[in-house]
Amino acid sequence: MTPPTSSPSTALLTDHYELTMLASALTDGSAERDCVFEVFARRLPDGRRYGVVAGAARLLEALVDFQFTDAEIDQLAATNVVDDDTLDWLASYRFTGDIDGYPEGELYFPGSPVLTVRASFAEAVVLETLVLSILNHDCAIASAAARMAAAAGTRPIIEMGGRRTHEYAAVAAARAAYIGGFATTSNLEAGRRYGISTRGTVAHAFMLLHDTEEAAFRAQIEKLGTDTTLLVDTYDITAGIDTAVRVAGTELGAVRIDSGDVGVLARQARQQLDRLGARDARIVVSGDLDEHAIAALRAEPVDAYGVGTAVVTGSGAPTANMVYKLVEVDGKPVAKRSESKESRGGRKSALRRHKPTGTATEEVVHQATSPPDPGEHDRVLPIPLVRGGEVADNLPTLEDSRQRLRHALVSLPWEGLKLSHGDPAIPTVFR
Amino acid sequence: MTPPTSSPSTALLTDHYELTMLASALTDGSAERDCVFEVFARRLPDGRRYGVVAGAARLLEALVDFQFTDAEIDQLAATNVVDDDTLDWLASYRFTGDIDGYPEGELYFPGSPVLTVRASFAEAVVLETLVLSILNHDCAIASAAARMAAAAGTRPIIEMGGRRTHEYAAVAAARAAYIGGFATTSNLEAGRRYGISTRGTVAHAFMLLHDTEEAAFRAQIEKLGTDTTLLVDTYDITAGIDTAVRVAGTELGAVRIDSGDVGVLARQARQQLDRLGARDARIVVSGDLDEHAIAALRAEPVDAYGVGTAVVTGSGAPTANMVYKLVEVDGKPVAKRSESKESRGGRKSALRRHKPTGTATEEVVHQATSPPDPGEHDRVLPIPLVRGGEVADNLPTLEDSRQRLRHALVSLPWEGLKLSHGDPAIPTVFR
Repeated sequence: MTPPTSSPSTALLTDHYELTMLASALTDGSAERDCVFEVFARRLPDGRRYGVVAGAARLLEALVDFQFTDAEIDQLAATNVVDDDTLDWLASYRFTGDIDGYPEGELYFPGSPVLTVRASFAEAVVLETLVLSILNHDCAIASAAARMAAAAGTRPIIEMGGRRTHEYAAVAAARAAYIGGFATTSNLEAGRRYGISTRGTVAHAFMLLHDTEEAAFRAQIEKLGTDTTLLVDTYDITAGIDTAVRVAGTELGAVRIDSGDVGVLARQARQQLDRLGARDARIVVSGDLDEHAIAALRAEPVDAYGVGTAVVTGSGAPTANMVYKLVEVDGKPVAKRSESKESRGGRKSALRRHKPTGTATEEVVHQATSPPDPGEHDRVLPIPLVRGGEVADNLPTLEDSRQRLRHALVSLPWEGLKLSHGDPAIPTVFR
Repeated sequence: MTPPTSSPSTALLTDHYELTMLASALTDGSAERDCVFEVFARRLPDGRRYGVVAGAARLLEALVDFQFTDAEIDQLAATNVVDDDTLDWLASYRFTGDIDGYPEGELYFPGSPVLTVRASFAEAVVLETLVLSILNHDCAIASAAARMAAAAGTRPIIEMGGRRTHEYAAVAAARAAYIGGFATTSNLEAGRRYGISTRGTVAHAFMLLHDTEEAAFRAQIEKLGTDTTLLVDTYDITAGIDTAVRVAGTELGAVRIDSGDVGVLARQARQQLDRLGARDARIVVSGDLDEHAIAALRAEPVDAYGVGTAVVTGSGAPTANMVYKLVEVDGKPVAKRSESKESRGGRKSALRRHKPTGTATEEVVHQATSPPDPGEHDRVLPIPLVRGGEVADNLPTLEDSRQRLRHALVSLPWEGLKLSHGDPAIPTVFR
């Protein structure tokens, strides 16, 4: 990997057993065996028709910082996690292997080999938790976001759920939601780290701070101009809209409604705004929206959505439940044999088959060494992410990933975009 | 607050609108009004009977690091979030107000004033997202963990869900689960940050790495001794246990079963281990356990549980849905008036009433300035956390919080500990 950065080490974002496995494997030489670990989801969350890959770029950053400095070694020594020989090995740890993965914004299905790590057992086994934490979180959020963005159509969604999840998960969630098709975020740290455009105006606290709604509107407009979003549901919405237009004039940018039956209220607000001459004033709705609520508002005069809790908690599926499984040792496939959790051995790759019209028909997962003949409309899915420990050049940007998803969703059979519970949009075929 | 530490600033873990509210409030002087913000949950997650407070100590750490250094100011300037006057104000931001809150490990109910922030509007409004992110996450995890620990009784639970949630949420989740009653964690960073005892032995990858199950067991025992946990379900469990005892002898520490119908398998394993003379070998079960699965295993010969996904995702309730509401301005109560989201104004405190037997009977939430007469068996719930910007001395330790919860759960009416859906264990009474 590239040299240490000033970031804090990510090396202890790791489960204890990864290091005891390493220690044990160092005793009999098995630690040096060539291994392939594969990340995949055995199934999609209940009733979901597709998953969205996100997190690869965050993983590659975390991998660069995965180093056992003196601070980590001292901690492991003080708590007797592993013996001195293992600590010596960890102190010089650098990942020198290869990683391939589905690019961010790509769709995945049950059994898709979303990430493949090739290295010695020792080098690869210690990455399990870091890899899974990042992919399980980010894929869960991006998958939920994509359903919401699809339901919203051309109407933009602002992500505003940071307060409903861990303070750093919030930052990653904003990024994953952006890949999923959200337009902007309220999260300032996501603005800083990822360049995502941030948005926000006022909360109810600002309204209550002032003696009257009018005073609050005036203060807001004085600072933010008339092209701002006034929050009109603190007291009486009809009176609030009257006041909003009186104070801002017909140039008013938007009103936000955050409570009540927002469909009905949006219709009434549209009529009232039009009657008052504020025909260009937009209507933003928020308040416990999820993909189903957004879909139910399709026919209503809503211009933008604010979505919080539902997206940052994966809308019922807060984790993608991906696993990191050893599939090959010294070139030979391996797999667990017990009944309920069968895995398929061997290093794999995948391609997606499409009709000439561009509609996806199946996900073909195959042994990496024996790819099927690629048809004219097939697409190989994994890309090289790391080679010999070095992060690949020219990886997709965040915008690329967002665009990739947009195109991928268009390629699904139409049933695949339905919000109702159903089977995966295309079958996974194992070759 | 205390002087800056070397930690990265937490100041941008903030929603855009907090700064635009600040900017607007600075224009008309309302920014300097004395305000009280209150954190509470309007309701518990569906069917839950109590919530568990966690996160306060993490919040106080994050508050110390909530400073707008040049890096944050430059970012806000470059993205035009707020004007220069507001940036000047932020550059010298220090929280100088007071914070009271329910101590970690305390129970909460709908409307419990879990945290109260008293400061100028300007100082308090910018903390909304940081406060809520930490409390919503940590309370959700601790609440789920408490149900699992109650179901497990005296059997220990190891938290092993780091891989199913964001990599830093994982660390906080391990801490919250510990408050909730879990015994140990797999997460090494939680061991470092919070001193929680970490545990782990091997995964299936270690078994598959070796040519035979026996070779894997031998390598593990050579390094970790016979008082270790052998994973016996990679191939055939009966054969695995035979091999385990043959290799480790009757001194074998434990076996772990991670798949299948773990109740039936545990019973068979117990009989087999006893027959083989390994009567002291413990049985650890894991694999998609939640509080209901744990409860269903009560009668089975299980010695310890490993819990992952369910605890780190809050077992169906990944966020506590707490809100941060302005309740008082310049000494006068304020509250939003709209129908669906009514709030109660005024700075509040709370006490919990108990029968002479110690059983809790009600949560009394009252105006802070007019406390009801405390009965002999009542307990005032909030404690001072910050005074004049300084973090209070002698705050409860992590062990204190864990003990507090243990005592608090014993005080609930017996229905309150049922896992089934129901009403809050005690009513909240507003005075």
